[in-house]
Amino acid sequence: MRKVILGVAVSLDGFIEGPHGEYDWCAPDPDYNFNEFFDRFDTIFVGRKTYEMSSEMEGGPAGFPKFKEYIFSTKLDKVKDGATLIKGDTKTEVEKIKKEKGKDIWLFGGAGLTTSLMNLGLIDELSLAVYPVLLGRGKPLFNNIKDRINLTLLETKTYSTGLVSLTYSLAKKENERTT
Amino acid sequence: MRKVILGVAVSLDGFIEGPHGEYDWCAPDPDYNFNEFFDRFDTIFVGRKTYEMSSEMEGGPAGFPKFKEYIFSTKLDKVKDGATLIKGDTKTEVEKIKKEKGKDIWLFGGAGLTTSLMNLGLIDELSLAVYPVLLGRGKPLFNNIKDRINLTLLETKTYSTGLVSLTYSLAKKENERTT
Repeated sequence: MRKVILGVAVSLDGFIEGPHGEYDWCAPDPDYNFNEFFDRFDTIFVGRKTYEMSSEMEGGPAGFPKFKEYIFSTKLDKVKDGATLIKGDTKTEVEKIKKEKGKDIWLFGGAGLTTSLMNLGLIDELSLAVYPVLLGRGKPLFNNIKDRINLTLLETKTYSTGLVSLTYSLAKKENERTT
Repeated sequence: MRKVILGVAVSLDGFIEGPHGEYDWCAPDPDYNFNEFFDRFDTIFVGRKTYEMSSEMEGGPAGFPKFKEYIFSTKLDKVKDGATLIKGDTKTEVEKIKKEKGKDIWLFGGAGLTTSLMNLGLIDELSLAVYPVLLGRGKPLFNNIKDRINLTLLETKTYSTGLVSLTYSLAKKENERTT
């Protein structure tokens, strides 16, 4: 089954945006192999806010390959041509997409969609690019996660800029354990 | 000059305690070299809450070597024999202690003291033991940090349990830069 992988840049104190929406702290690392990262995916999950922000950029975020896009929103009634709107029953829809043939699915954000999918147990892997900065304030990546989630470390990579890439798979939630 | 090093266990989502004060998620890693860690220090900085909690344990936290202890509190009037109470002017007192001869100083916590010393620019290194768990809620390590702080990655270590140790030195705050 295809995996849903949360892949984001985060400050050491867990923010994905600075207090005024800044992204200047997470410039792409010259040594980071984006092609290898991108090559794993053919599909992207995007929340409404991220969609609205990135659709202001012509052709989506710069440098991204062409992914099949799913936009998650209860507010929107239509999305751009070629993209698919997921309006309700996230669990059923995501499980259906995961069962389709294809490469893995990149959960690109934002924080709201991440929380929803995390609490529904629909995320299979976390791939965090931890930047060497404390932002102090901003938008936290993890927010309102209901239950403790145990992780299994899959990989760490360290870059000369001080970026550390941490990849984890998600174990079952504590309260779903049978032991 | 002696360094002040914040050395703590933290969940991947940045908590130092679970929502009900739990520490069960950060059991000491059998492969972690505590002796090497402890050997770097002869002095420990402790906040009031951590002091009150740890002084309930006989002889302080189990397995700790004998450190010179400084307790930071505006509320307490006295502390146990052998420990020193720092009641006011944290900046002056800490700068004085840092200039004394000795090994480095372990900032053991808690969150309040960490924030104070961070905002006063008195912490030289962060040594985070990142446990492979999302707690969802609890007491955050970093809270009310006023300004963005750039970090320099010094070392990463990965353990078979999934623990990742990340060590950073603290650069000057953004607003203290002269460029």
